[in-house]
Amino acid sequence: MTTKKGILYLQSGGPTAVINSSLFGVIEEAKKHPEISVIAGARFGMDGVFKKDFVDLRKEDPAELKLLLQTPGAVLGSCRRKLPEDENDPVFATVLSTLHEKAIGTVLINGGNDSMDAVAKLASFFKRSHEDIRVIGIPKTIDNDLALTDHCPGYASAALHVMNLVSMVVVDSKAYTNGKVILVEIMGRNAGWLTASADLLPTDERPDLIYLPETAFDEERFLNRVQEIYAKKHCVVVVLSEGVNVPRQKDGMKDAFGHPVLEGISSYLGNQIMSRLNIGVHAMQLSLPQRADPAFVSKVDRKEAIECGRRAVRFALAGKTGQMVALKRITSRPYRVSYVLVPAAEIANQEKRVPTAWIVDDTKMSSAFRTYLAPLVSDIVPIRFEKGIFCITHLRLKKLL
Amino acid sequence: MTTKKGILYLQSGGPTAVINSSLFGVIEEAKKHPEISVIAGARFGMDGVFKKDFVDLRKEDPAELKLLLQTPGAVLGSCRRKLPEDENDPVFATVLSTLHEKAIGTVLINGGNDSMDAVAKLASFFKRSHEDIRVIGIPKTIDNDLALTDHCPGYASAALHVMNLVSMVVVDSKAYTNGKVILVEIMGRNAGWLTASADLLPTDERPDLIYLPETAFDEERFLNRVQEIYAKKHCVVVVLSEGVNVPRQKDGMKDAFGHPVLEGISSYLGNQIMSRLNIGVHAMQLSLPQRADPAFVSKVDRKEAIECGRRAVRFALAGKTGQMVALKRITSRPYRVSYVLVPAAEIANQEKRVPTAWIVDDTKMSSAFRTYLAPLVSDIVPIRFEKGIFCITHLRLKKLL
Repeated sequence: MTTKKGILYLQSGGPTAVINSSLFGVIEEAKKHPEISVIAGARFGMDGVFKKDFVDLRKEDPAELKLLLQTPGAVLGSCRRKLPEDENDPVFATVLSTLHEKAIGTVLINGGNDSMDAVAKLASFFKRSHEDIRVIGIPKTIDNDLALTDHCPGYASAALHVMNLVSMVVVDSKAYTNGKVILVEIMGRNAGWLTASADLLPTDERPDLIYLPETAFDEERFLNRVQEIYAKKHCVVVVLSEGVNVPRQKDGMKDAFGHPVLEGISSYLGNQIMSRLNIGVHAMQLSLPQRADPAFVSKVDRKEAIECGRRAVRFALAGKTGQMVALKRITSRPYRVSYVLVPAAEIANQEKRVPTAWIVDDTKMSSAFRTYLAPLVSDIVPIRFEKGIFCITHLRLKKLL
Repeated sequence: MTTKKGILYLQSGGPTAVINSSLFGVIEEAKKHPEISVIAGARFGMDGVFKKDFVDLRKEDPAELKLLLQTPGAVLGSCRRKLPEDENDPVFATVLSTLHEKAIGTVLINGGNDSMDAVAKLASFFKRSHEDIRVIGIPKTIDNDLALTDHCPGYASAALHVMNLVSMVVVDSKAYTNGKVILVEIMGRNAGWLTASADLLPTDERPDLIYLPETAFDEERFLNRVQEIYAKKHCVVVVLSEGVNVPRQKDGMKDAFGHPVLEGISSYLGNQIMSRLNIGVHAMQLSLPQRADPAFVSKVDRKEAIECGRRAVRFALAGKTGQMVALKRITSRPYRVSYVLVPAAEIANQEKRVPTAWIVDDTKMSSAFRTYLAPLVSDIVPIRFEKGIFCITHLRLKKLL
């Protein structure tokens, strides 16, 4: 049925360091199958579908495609858009007519929770409309919070960024006998997967304290812990998830004009330490580079991101739909995974958080967590630089005719 | 006179990605000269001199010394301590007696402005006391604000960190059609050298706006520029120096308890954009990794940092004192420099800022600036990783007997 039909690929949600590696996998795999007529990419995700803004991915230079493997961002453009709950909403019919017009028989959506919601809704609509259009999800998130998969492409590279940056901060902090409290705020929304990665650093590069959103945060206890360690070492490095829940923070901060202001958890807690403990603070957020650093891309992560793209194409050709490609761990030592399908509808609107049993206390994670993460971050991939700057791809992005 | 006398090396001020490369150069050069009896390092800079806390740098494993080249921080420890203005202060006599005790005939201080102040004061005191103890400065600062030298070891590597990180942010920001204003706050104290480096990025990786502390900052004009560019592109990336002078910021921000709070320029301006233009903002500070990232070390920078260390040893052996090793540019294309001596007293308490003639407007630097910086950041050095984390040295740091 899908013979002579095209593939449409979409990027969705926030970029990761390897989302473009999944795109690479999709293109490479699709080219192997002569029955695939069109390999299209939507510009800016679902927005591109509504605007019929598609590019012809067959028209790209192979050398530039190779550079997708080290290009951060989402090269086709992304968006955050939720499809309506009501399948009778005209939006679905519009999408269908556009896909017909472009002879698309497969839609691949590369994203996180919300994207899997779109996979489930589109697949269900096409089924109900008796249309043989397959919709497969390709996982992606640095937060590692997708259910039903062992881990997510994007997570391990972000973890290596976090680990290397925290190591820099710890090593740098040893220069002084009379240091500060350094607060390093790490992404991850409501899950502490990224923050927890700092636990795997070698002993003399580890932070002193690690706070995840999965456990209750007690501000008084936190201040006591900081004071205690500072008294001993004259320097404290704390890593903490952006999602750590500090009830008092809600009182908020105001600028000179009384407007509420931008404030991260590190800034809030930094101000508490300064005003209540009278200790100097350096508050920092690792910010956007966590999802965009090509210098610390994990070898396993890149390989799996490519492979998830490839498998998505093959699963669609095999007639699967409404599912997401997931990683199933077979063994950790040696590290082996298989690629399976899981129902997209069960992933949407769910968050997988760090099991509390894996959190020993505010200084360390369990050995189960270490066994889980270690094989994912065992190695980085060397990348190409030109004049000191990492090379990025320059795709043609020719309009699909 | 200095035959059979020892060398003492100190690290001072904030670390850079290559300060340990200068230490490497000092040790390698000193070992070549049989007349040098002792190669000592002070723990935590001048503090170590007062505490007689010295390590024997001859006792280190050559493989670990090699890893100094990619180890951030200041491995011997540093401090920020100004020597008294009065040469009759007993502090100077104390230092002298300690140096006698340890048979030290040469003191090398690796640091910035304040360190050159120490070089000048100690050299002057020793001369006045008719003591043949030579004091030479080895330059180091990411801020590039030392006078009398073409540039400073540490600057180019920090610039490559800034350039690569800004590129990541710009590439990442292209993922959305409806983006934010991203404010990237960059170190450099009162000088814009580091911020200006973003000007050298390839066209599609450049920020939209560049603000240095060397030109007057007009907040209203800034907000207009941001609004103008946002209306056109729906995304604006601004790089700005921490030293940009915003008078209204002095009004300050307060937490819920009325305490003044930590606030960088990016956070202050971010709040202005949100409240006055009603545009979403992502404010980030590149923070400590600017001076501690081994992944973007400049080849030229590392080489020059090593060479400054070597030259300091040779200049001291040749009887020079009270001077700093400086880089003198001969030509930019091809890039050639010579190593000269300049009076430490003339560097202390001076700041070299970016010439305003090199600042074209708030979007670009002049070609003179580009010619200046380009050869310094032309290439990065690949480094060793183990289990995904950059390797650091593990020195023995054996007490000097």
